[in-house]
Amino acid sequence: MHPNDPRLKSFVAVAPDSHFPIQNLPFGVFSTGAEPTPRVGVAIGDRVLDLSVLEQAGLLSAGSRGGRVFDQPSLNAFMALGRTVWRDTRARISELLRDDAPRLRDDPDLRSRALVPMTESLLHLPVEIGGYTDFYSSKEHATNVGTMFRDPKNALLPNWLHLPVGYNGRASSVVVSGTPVRRPNGQTKAPADEVPSFGPCRKLDMELETAFIVGEGNDLGEPVPVGDAERRIFGMVLMNDWSARDIQQWEYVPLGPFNSKTFATSISPWIVTLEALEPFRVAGPVQDPEPLPYLRQGGKASVDLHLEVSLKPEGAGKATTVCRTNFRHMYWSMAQQLAHHTVSGCNTRIGDLMGSGTISGPALDSFGSLLELTWNGQRPITLEGGGERSFLLDSDEVVITGWCQADGYRVGFGEVAGRIVAAHPADVCP
Amino acid sequence: MHPNDPRLKSFVAVAPDSHFPIQNLPFGVFSTGAEPTPRVGVAIGDRVLDLSVLEQAGLLSAGSRGGRVFDQPSLNAFMALGRTVWRDTRARISELLRDDAPRLRDDPDLRSRALVPMTESLLHLPVEIGGYTDFYSSKEHATNVGTMFRDPKNALLPNWLHLPVGYNGRASSVVVSGTPVRRPNGQTKAPADEVPSFGPCRKLDMELETAFIVGEGNDLGEPVPVGDAERRIFGMVLMNDWSARDIQQWEYVPLGPFNSKTFATSISPWIVTLEALEPFRVAGPVQDPEPLPYLRQGGKASVDLHLEVSLKPEGAGKATTVCRTNFRHMYWSMAQQLAHHTVSGCNTRIGDLMGSGTISGPALDSFGSLLELTWNGQRPITLEGGGERSFLLDSDEVVITGWCQADGYRVGFGEVAGRIVAAHPADVCP
Repeated sequence: MHPNDPRLKSFVAVAPDSHFPIQNLPFGVFSTGAEPTPRVGVAIGDRVLDLSVLEQAGLLSAGSRGGRVFDQPSLNAFMALGRTVWRDTRARISELLRDDAPRLRDDPDLRSRALVPMTESLLHLPVEIGGYTDFYSSKEHATNVGTMFRDPKNALLPNWLHLPVGYNGRASSVVVSGTPVRRPNGQTKAPADEVPSFGPCRKLDMELETAFIVGEGNDLGEPVPVGDAERRIFGMVLMNDWSARDIQQWEYVPLGPFNSKTFATSISPWIVTLEALEPFRVAGPVQDPEPLPYLRQGGKASVDLHLEVSLKPEGAGKATTVCRTNFRHMYWSMAQQLAHHTVSGCNTRIGDLMGSGTISGPALDSFGSLLELTWNGQRPITLEGGGERSFLLDSDEVVITGWCQADGYRVGFGEVAGRIVAAHPADVCP
Repeated sequence: MHPNDPRLKSFVAVAPDSHFPIQNLPFGVFSTGAEPTPRVGVAIGDRVLDLSVLEQAGLLSAGSRGGRVFDQPSLNAFMALGRTVWRDTRARISELLRDDAPRLRDDPDLRSRALVPMTESLLHLPVEIGGYTDFYSSKEHATNVGTMFRDPKNALLPNWLHLPVGYNGRASSVVVSGTPVRRPNGQTKAPADEVPSFGPCRKLDMELETAFIVGEGNDLGEPVPVGDAERRIFGMVLMNDWSARDIQQWEYVPLGPFNSKTFATSISPWIVTLEALEPFRVAGPVQDPEPLPYLRQGGKASVDLHLEVSLKPEGAGKATTVCRTNFRHMYWSMAQQLAHHTVSGCNTRIGDLMGSGTISGPALDSFGSLLELTWNGQRPITLEGGGERSFLLDSDEVVITGWCQADGYRVGFGEVAGRIVAAHPADVCP
């Protein structure tokens, strides 16, 4: 059976609302207290399957051509083996986890070494990220921002419908889910102020995004055709592109956001492969005007991926879901983003991270940032259990989750979470 | 004697106009036909001193704490040893090359293995670049661009005098001097056009820049104070930030340049250490208004570094010098750039590259881009030997050079050169 087959069951128990049934098998990097060396694993139910153990036991042959690839602190060596190996490895793992497959199931020693409780696992950044690019591909988000800060009658800038606008982000500050996020200090200037001042960000925001990870790069000067783009994508993660709106507003003209974004970007630890998402592919929005030929892509360019954001102040009994939306609203597709990124000849490399841009839907509660949800603070969100928020306060935790719903199971991403810690005092700050 | 002492002479002959006297000793990575493994070297006159040979012979102890650091394809391992080791190593190399030092001079075998003719050397990218950031720190350049494209009466944007504007560049496409540069294809739209079109860039430009290389990083959330910034800088290179002006004009709002810059950025192969530049330090321009405290820096914040750009069509007998300027005109200093980059908590890493932005002086022939020199094509440059240029044509070669002039010798950067190759045909392009 194909590893996406809905009839498959694993011998590891998987709850119906788990994100990690045998039909998913997302890749990540983890360590444990007993074995603190980071290595590659796959999520199954509430366990991590240690691929380095299976590799050592001779049950996985991915690295047969190039040494051991799972006994590594990132997925880059595995990704370098290419798409056929990605597919074969996932199929082999599926075979090993099937409820009717005795090899692993009936070997108590191997099973106890290879299947680690997720609660005992520390999850790491899954890839070594050479380059991080962020796009701006939600029409609803771009329209909201243009309406707020420029001209409601001409909210979309002239280039927006013709190309997937993107910019280079800062790879060094991409962190894994759970990493605390320090509120940045920076320069801000309100329109009424005569001169800028320095201090902690007062409009700290989250941005709901997904991102894809390049599994096969391209050489400098050799663009990736749009039809060749998806086979180079290893998989997707959830991303929170933390943003300091007041710093951004003052700094971003004319070269784009810088300090307002580079202080932290969080991603979820499990990379869901494009293959696992195949059953959930759907067409994206109709693109009008028709894009230039190098951006034309037919078929199911998008994914029916449900997304949610919740916000929880420290000590609050309950998190408040502040956004429910879907990736399928995105105007520009991942393949179009990669084709556009490389059309000038720019090279990409294994492990490059490409963000979708904030994902906003058409409904008021489907906007992917507090900037939009509160309309720049004009209509604060009411929190369950009391209180309200325009932007993030210290100790607030933001959790983004997302999954594709099948009949009886979910192919999910887990979550990307981050809690805000107080800024360094501005007077002792350099 | 201090390695910067003007009285020092090397036993290797050095011409008076050489960029590489014993007072310089810039670091790079090279290979030869006979020994194609890239390794670390230092330029002296018309030779490359192979530090991996000296290390193996026990004459350099830099790596004593951490294994061999010069038998490496980048300087990152050496830089990781820290500033004291950088300084001690340079002093030791200076001692070994002195005309009165017999150890290397009088060992013909070691000498022939350690001193390679530069003409037989292939120079590589000297560092592994994790992050590339480009600033926009020349007041003259920002004023010229603002005058051309926005409002001559308000050429500088409101934030420009308050912070060193910068943006994230694309590290993957940074190449070493000599790498051919393919003309990019891309989307452009002239104001008179109804819709954008796709094809080869018609306004291909160079940008005269320098860049510094981070030798000691900072942790996420821990800003670098301005007074602590310079000691983290390993050295400087020359940089040509190739730019597609027509693509840039259409794409850059609101998130900054992307495809117009990411197709190639060239750097010179030799990193001149900040220590070697010490005798040439000068004060930068007066900053008015006074910057916020986190950006305040006294003393000699700049460098008296003469810079030139020449352009040579293929087959032309002679290159035309199109720009003569000086780094000392730069408004924002390297220390201010690094302090600003990290003030929000952004981490930097060993090997990060930070570009100055286009360096333009006050005179018409001191502008650092063809955009400014030809005023967006309105006053083409006349080439020696005939012909003229508004922007670069295929097969044109651009060479940037720069040096600090002392009494009787130069501490120089060599050059960063690149020749334009024709675009892929737009109709076969994806």
